[in-house]
Amino acid sequence: MAGRDHGGDLDRARTLHGGTDWIDLSTGINPRPYPMPEIPPAALAALPTSEEIMALEAAAAAACGTVTGVVALSGAQAAIQLVPRLREAGHAAVLSPSYNEHAASLRAHGWCVAEARDLAAMEGADLAVVVNPNNPDGRAWAPEVLADLAGRVGLLVVDESFADPHPEVSLCPRLRDLGETALVLRSFGKFYGLAGLRLGFAIGGARTLALLRDLAGPWAVSGPAIVAGRAALGDHAWRTATTRRLFRAAARLDALADSAGWSLVGGTALFRTYETGDGFAVRDRLAVGRIWTRAFPYSRGWLRLGLPGSEDAWLRLERALACGRE
Amino acid sequence: MAGRDHGGDLDRARTLHGGTDWIDLSTGINPRPYPMPEIPPAALAALPTSEEIMALEAAAAAACGTVTGVVALSGAQAAIQLVPRLREAGHAAVLSPSYNEHAASLRAHGWCVAEARDLAAMEGADLAVVVNPNNPDGRAWAPEVLADLAGRVGLLVVDESFADPHPEVSLCPRLRDLGETALVLRSFGKFYGLAGLRLGFAIGGARTLALLRDLAGPWAVSGPAIVAGRAALGDHAWRTATTRRLFRAAARLDALADSAGWSLVGGTALFRTYETGDGFAVRDRLAVGRIWTRAFPYSRGWLRLGLPGSEDAWLRLERALACGRE
Repeated sequence: MAGRDHGGDLDRARTLHGGTDWIDLSTGINPRPYPMPEIPPAALAALPTSEEIMALEAAAAAACGTVTGVVALSGAQAAIQLVPRLREAGHAAVLSPSYNEHAASLRAHGWCVAEARDLAAMEGADLAVVVNPNNPDGRAWAPEVLADLAGRVGLLVVDESFADPHPEVSLCPRLRDLGETALVLRSFGKFYGLAGLRLGFAIGGARTLALLRDLAGPWAVSGPAIVAGRAALGDHAWRTATTRRLFRAAARLDALADSAGWSLVGGTALFRTYETGDGFAVRDRLAVGRIWTRAFPYSRGWLRLGLPGSEDAWLRLERALACGRE
Repeated sequence: MAGRDHGGDLDRARTLHGGTDWIDLSTGINPRPYPMPEIPPAALAALPTSEEIMALEAAAAAACGTVTGVVALSGAQAAIQLVPRLREAGHAAVLSPSYNEHAASLRAHGWCVAEARDLAAMEGADLAVVVNPNNPDGRAWAPEVLADLAGRVGLLVVDESFADPHPEVSLCPRLRDLGETALVLRSFGKFYGLAGLRLGFAIGGARTLALLRDLAGPWAVSGPAIVAGRAALGDHAWRTATTRRLFRAAARLDALADSAGWSLVGGTALFRTYETGDGFAVRDRLAVGRIWTRAFPYSRGWLRLGLPGSEDAWLRLERALACGRE
């Protein structure tokens, strides 16, 4: 684990506050995962073959609605580690605030990183990173706007880690026209609720993907990730039903937040960020009830919550919020 | 998959020769894997925590007999991809012939790579790589000899991917005295027969490991790999019994090779390399019986075989070899 501040740090919550029956709302991971298929013994024992990896990548391309190439990697994070090496280090712009690993990874590889508040401020950068929809504020940009930006920077990297339930914002269907100017990163674990499997994809131009594949080396994804990824990415019915369910859950969370007196900053169907007045205080108060959420060092008021995964979790969250109002 | 020639390319054999019931002897992976423990849902759904990764790394340290630090990575191959970035690119020496990814990865990162025939030829290199025991010829060096070499090069990287059944050759117990001058790479998948899980370790000095951890990024290993790794690395009885079984199987393979008129080049308890006169011809002849082995572009005569995993596989190999003598 790198030393940067992340969600998913439930061990930290346990150390600080004790207890075991925690509800982890500190990430944007779907709490009701895709049913894990049985893993055939060969997928555990043998090295993944080229055929298996190609079939996984084809399933990802179909799910993302792209006809360009795809490279499977061990998580969107693995792609973020390699992005700085796709071009000679120069001036990068990262749409901010956002997921903090992008700027950190670029800086660690010698890039000069500017934190841009809007797309206009990114023009002319050698490499530009936009998380779309953005984490944690939920800002989203239309694909035609990003396609336009791709022509005004050296390489546009669009992190679509939370785009699965929002296909209308995805740049993937336009990638064929963007050549080597755009690269999309996708996470498998968030929408499919299987973050522990470590699977993600990079989608873009042939030369950029060939370089990524070389940097990642052979056998970059595991057998279990290949088996689960192929099954899940091809399951349209599950994807449709899950998207609907996530939107309903997000609306329920917004209603709860509203009655707690919080206002919506923004979000996706996988997480919601609210202005609470004092994010760290609310986080610590919820932690007393063993509910772990995410506050942000750069914003005093913001609190991000993932979606509760069970009626029991919803009730505990409702109760914890009601306590705060007494 | 990178384009280099490897074992484990069974899909290639299937394409060339057809059929489905292949026996894959093209790798040095133990064909009788550690029994996969049940994976708790949380290990699939949630991001691995720092606590879980630390427990895995502690289990690896204990199994390797080291008190220095360990970093878990998604396979020894993942470490090989990062090694070139541990030092400023300069002159590297790779003990050759050996696993071809070391030199390829160094060259791809701007290193000037010399292929050294013996340890003496490596002295003075900025970075030196020795696979110990070596793949495919089984040459092995005593740890005190390698500890001495570590003092004569910038960084000595020892790839111990096949060292599990040969703990007497491991440099791990001496790493504490070698500071930042030596780094050991270990594979989990080969000895434990779970190569599809993608798990490996780097062991060495604190500064080198901190850099590796940064380069790999957070959540570099999957939940299933953590669960299986912790169970398997702590199972001394299985390790002892498996080591004995592998040595018996290796002796049986040597006897079979001897009756086929081949002479032993060398090997480990996980694979054996023989001088056969014409390695590619023998490989293709065995492939007719759907047995896949490994020939080497740099040696006309050599053929490497992994160990058959069942009595049925042994019988098919015996029969295929007998056919060749008629």
